[in-house]
Amino acid sequence: MQTTQDFQALIDQKIEGFCRKNGDANILQPVNYILSLGGKRVRPLLTLLAADLFCDDIEDAIYPAIAMEIFHNFTLMHDDIMDNAPLRRGHATVHEKWNRDVAILSGDAMLIQAYQLIIKTKPECLGEVMRLFNQTALEVCEGQQLDMDFQVRKNVTVEEYIEMIRLKTSVLLGGAMKIGATIAGASATDSDAIYNFAIDLGLSFQLWDDYLDAFGDASKTGKQTGGDILADKKTFLMIRAWEKANSAQRGVLEQCAKGSMEGDRKVAITLELFKTLGVDADLRTEVERYYSRALQHLDSIQVERDRKEHIRLLALALHHRQF
Amino acid sequence: MQTTQDFQALIDQKIEGFCRKNGDANILQPVNYILSLGGKRVRPLLTLLAADLFCDDIEDAIYPAIAMEIFHNFTLMHDDIMDNAPLRRGHATVHEKWNRDVAILSGDAMLIQAYQLIIKTKPECLGEVMRLFNQTALEVCEGQQLDMDFQVRKNVTVEEYIEMIRLKTSVLLGGAMKIGATIAGASATDSDAIYNFAIDLGLSFQLWDDYLDAFGDASKTGKQTGGDILADKKTFLMIRAWEKANSAQRGVLEQCAKGSMEGDRKVAITLELFKTLGVDADLRTEVERYYSRALQHLDSIQVERDRKEHIRLLALALHHRQF
Repeated sequence: MQTTQDFQALIDQKIEGFCRKNGDANILQPVNYILSLGGKRVRPLLTLLAADLFCDDIEDAIYPAIAMEIFHNFTLMHDDIMDNAPLRRGHATVHEKWNRDVAILSGDAMLIQAYQLIIKTKPECLGEVMRLFNQTALEVCEGQQLDMDFQVRKNVTVEEYIEMIRLKTSVLLGGAMKIGATIAGASATDSDAIYNFAIDLGLSFQLWDDYLDAFGDASKTGKQTGGDILADKKTFLMIRAWEKANSAQRGVLEQCAKGSMEGDRKVAITLELFKTLGVDADLRTEVERYYSRALQHLDSIQVERDRKEHIRLLALALHHRQF
Repeated sequence: MQTTQDFQALIDQKIEGFCRKNGDANILQPVNYILSLGGKRVRPLLTLLAADLFCDDIEDAIYPAIAMEIFHNFTLMHDDIMDNAPLRRGHATVHEKWNRDVAILSGDAMLIQAYQLIIKTKPECLGEVMRLFNQTALEVCEGQQLDMDFQVRKNVTVEEYIEMIRLKTSVLLGGAMKIGATIAGASATDSDAIYNFAIDLGLSFQLWDDYLDAFGDASKTGKQTGGDILADKKTFLMIRAWEKANSAQRGVLEQCAKGSMEGDRKVAITLELFKTLGVDADLRTEVERYYSRALQHLDSIQVERDRKEHIRLLALALHHRQF
């Protein structure tokens, strides 16, 4: 039986081979660059773990798994332009290191390369895998669109926020696992269950990210505490706080958002109000709710309990992370 | 037997249906907008004509044909950002009407939508059609990359220029026809012949575009005569002129490129020099050479001569156009 570490080593090796084959063509240099920055490579791992759940040989799932990571990095390359982000994983973003046009065009090439990997799927699954991949890819774009829309909208509900992070983050985790399961011959019911597991795990993961941003230990997260507050982001905490606040408390939040306040003070006042309103506890409740829903989906899958161990451990590690 | 006009009407109808299905989702509004601007829709027509060459029912080729037009418009949406183009087919470009981020993201969605149409290909051809489409799409991106590279390079050879327009323009025409032929069950030899026909027709077409830009009748082309000269573009004419010029004539070209000269004068002096050096005749020779090579490829295809009539007429119309 292979371990998660074996799968991770295999993914790294295949991505290295992919980059070597790209060579140093101008248009592919930024592709190799963004991949060289590493990252956790969770998506291809999820594809392989899902395939491993239903079949003993994950060979057929390898290239589609790598396609997930290539697609994910394509979205990072284009999102970084839209967000004017200077850094990605501690290094210059592609549009900073080269320029905007290169980041657009190499991103486009990268999306096409993801499809070049997808079509290595065995013929009997190709149609279904392509359909899943297309739907997922389009939904991820819709998620990014919603995220941008929300930045200029005054009111966003918790339901709308959850739908945005579902599209922007969860569906790619869901698609990655469902593609692995499909290739491994899982039943429709089990494929849906692993998809729903990943959707709920993704929501739990993203909401916990919001929590760590506000209440995490900066020495562990490596990020400035209150980054979302400073950027006036409409996260779960902020949306829920606005919903629960009385008019005086709303006045405080409006004062904080005006931009004239010193950063440290803005963060301190906002965090204090979050606690007064109990939205930190609300958020933890939601994180737990989605996490336990995810585990229920995993439990429902019709394979021996032992086979699910790798996935359960990965979920646990993501759930308990402090960074 | 269906006519070219029937095919064009079918394409217009299918694109209309595609847009209707898109509805008014934020991310798809720019997709519908750019498609509403029309254009000649030559690429889907080539797919249908190629299918019609080898089989009596073009039904199976319709959605892949529409995919070609969606892909083409995706490249326009992203190229317009890179070129800072304010107008497309006489109307505001997407990044002007909305903004840069919308044009990036809706372009990405449009590329994915092209794949959604491609997977409607009948299963027995899906793998081959996807492979062709991926290769074509990547080459078009490479062509755009070369075009951008050339803008900042001092020396570009005629061979490099031809390679750039082959990638940027011809391969999509070639891919469109080869996909149609593949779906219609053409032999490998005939599929290659129709591909090579489209490549050479595309080169002839693009070189003739260069000619019209310099020597065309502005009242017919609807474009400013000498637009490429004013934009200091490295077209066939300019590259060849530089190759043939003596040192005094190179001095004149350098003087023109400096940017201090009045536009009308710059165009007049350059055109005069083009004629003195005979590069206008060189260009016409190349246009004819690629056009007759294209016809040879068409002639080599193993179907009755009558079946090729629509394609021959389309090639002739493109060849003799004054706009």
